[in-house]
Amino acid sequence: MHYLDYEALQDFAINILEHIGYPREKATITAWALVEADARGVPSHGLQRLGDYESYVQEGLFCPHASLERVHETPSSVVLDGHNGIGMDIADQAMKLCIDRAKKGGSGFCAVRNSNHYGMAGLWAEMAVPQGCIGVAMTNTEKFAIVTHGKERLLGTNPLAVALPAKGGEPFLLDMATTTVPHGKIEVYARRGLSMPLGWAVDAEGKDTGDAPGMSTLFKSPLPLGGQLMLGGRGELLGGHKGYGLGLLVELFCAALSGGTWSRHTFTPETGGAIAHFFAALDLRLFGNPSKIAATVESILEEIRASSPAEGEERIYIHGEKEREQRQKALASGVPLDEITWRELQAYGKRFSLDLPRELFPE
Amino acid sequence: MHYLDYEALQDFAINILEHIGYPREKATITAWALVEADARGVPSHGLQRLGDYESYVQEGLFCPHASLERVHETPSSVVLDGHNGIGMDIADQAMKLCIDRAKKGGSGFCAVRNSNHYGMAGLWAEMAVPQGCIGVAMTNTEKFAIVTHGKERLLGTNPLAVALPAKGGEPFLLDMATTTVPHGKIEVYARRGLSMPLGWAVDAEGKDTGDAPGMSTLFKSPLPLGGQLMLGGRGELLGGHKGYGLGLLVELFCAALSGGTWSRHTFTPETGGAIAHFFAALDLRLFGNPSKIAATVESILEEIRASSPAEGEERIYIHGEKEREQRQKALASGVPLDEITWRELQAYGKRFSLDLPRELFPE
Repeated sequence: MHYLDYEALQDFAINILEHIGYPREKATITAWALVEADARGVPSHGLQRLGDYESYVQEGLFCPHASLERVHETPSSVVLDGHNGIGMDIADQAMKLCIDRAKKGGSGFCAVRNSNHYGMAGLWAEMAVPQGCIGVAMTNTEKFAIVTHGKERLLGTNPLAVALPAKGGEPFLLDMATTTVPHGKIEVYARRGLSMPLGWAVDAEGKDTGDAPGMSTLFKSPLPLGGQLMLGGRGELLGGHKGYGLGLLVELFCAALSGGTWSRHTFTPETGGAIAHFFAALDLRLFGNPSKIAATVESILEEIRASSPAEGEERIYIHGEKEREQRQKALASGVPLDEITWRELQAYGKRFSLDLPRELFPE
Repeated sequence: MHYLDYEALQDFAINILEHIGYPREKATITAWALVEADARGVPSHGLQRLGDYESYVQEGLFCPHASLERVHETPSSVVLDGHNGIGMDIADQAMKLCIDRAKKGGSGFCAVRNSNHYGMAGLWAEMAVPQGCIGVAMTNTEKFAIVTHGKERLLGTNPLAVALPAKGGEPFLLDMATTTVPHGKIEVYARRGLSMPLGWAVDAEGKDTGDAPGMSTLFKSPLPLGGQLMLGGRGELLGGHKGYGLGLLVELFCAALSGGTWSRHTFTPETGGAIAHFFAALDLRLFGNPSKIAATVESILEEIRASSPAEGEERIYIHGEKEREQRQKALASGVPLDEITWRELQAYGKRFSLDLPRELFPE
């Protein structure tokens, strides 16, 4: 692993994105979101995506100069058309609209069509917390997953993120793909030539498979059979229909409320990226005294943390804690990047004549 | 199985509940919710609960004459204290408050503390649909589930229900416990002496178990170890931390936003039932033309229904469809009750000198 100074790495990523064709402001928010993911130990949503992003710009799936259009508005809601602009920029603006409305009237909602990858969903949900609000962020994606009893790839990994303020400033932050694992995890296994645990995906014949490279190839092929399994796995025995229901719920909130495109039809030459999001912010004052509510949240979380771990386990985590601790470490000792990603960044540096960010060497 | 006329069965249940101590109006909404569950093929939330309900009234956990108190209010939200009243009555009133606010200002929210079992969560979420709204209903429960890496029973089965209008009047209705299975399913296996699939529960030693009667005994014992697994199962490999996150999310929305009691501490002689709920209604007009949105929802659902089933599967279901078809059958040919439940009802009939509802004999 290589460890890079957080600030320097962000500046470097901003420069790369500008050379790829992003306006400065959109490059800045995108670089922030990518470096945050690496800093939090979620490299699947980090700088390794830069290469993809460049291709998407070239193919016209991402349109860095598109502007955001408000197509419907009420005092507590907005529907946006992103015209295939930059996902992070769109998510940032959409969430700000939600928070602004929530601070005025208690709640704010924003459905977005024709947007693009926005990185970790949790980043956007979390924006609401310092404002005393609950934050919600959902998105559909490319089609990666089969539905219960089906064999065609139809749904995306459709992540759902919800952040709730807790006293002390460390929110509860759930940020989960509604598939058993995020798509990037299968790509990581594929790149490393590793075998996946059974229960993550089925092949084109509908059989359980651990063949990550094979699945990675399948995902890029035009054959729409086989794919990731929804949370709860295959069939109904362990609740696979529930994961399917959650994924479909996210799909409907994103694609149907925005009048957009559902995962099955995104990322085509005709549509562009065309993915859809849903955001919400709810002011805690809807439910009483915010600091009292945040204290109740914290007291529940604290009881869970203090409960007994199972044999062989050391600690019980609350959602968001692991990533927060990784982030603290990264701010102090550098953002971790794997060898391949670091080489890609070095190649960008050479190509665009950029100074490389400072590498740190933590003990 | 025995098949009973839907209307007659409801009247009969109303009479039993009145004899148990429910005022007429609360008996009516409770009987409706219980018979609806049996009619929809969800007997775990049906009339088999009458015996429990009678015990809870006797033990003071349910207070049939409690009245509902508004403890906090804004133009789009209400926080209620149910004073351990009747869950179905409270849920019905809470959801009506949400819908009323949503029709006026776009959205309505209601957090409830000190309530009780309200039956199938989906019934309440679904109430929003004929009003052109998305409906949400969540509840915590008694403590039944362990958290990822933990061994103590802390969380409830914490169901989440969301209903979205679709053109044609058949909504998408997700209604799911955030555990792999609802608690009632383990009780059904226990009563029938069946072995459960592994992945539903772990015993007091934290080991996977298929022993349903053993688990049923454990749930009733004071030993707080072992319990149901959250959706995604044990550990993190297949996403158990996501099910835990969803269960905790429901817990926080219910218990923390209402200032109530979390599942770990409900159903004690000191607290009474004391469970907490969360409801919401969102008017589709927040996002544009409601009938256009409902048409987009339906078109997505229709594409999924029409996609190819896997080998050996006949059909791909949308959430809510199975239960709706069961309900149609029950309205035409009688509500199915198992032998034990029918005998319990007959015993109530004898004890309270009530005429039995008409039994039907469908071919």
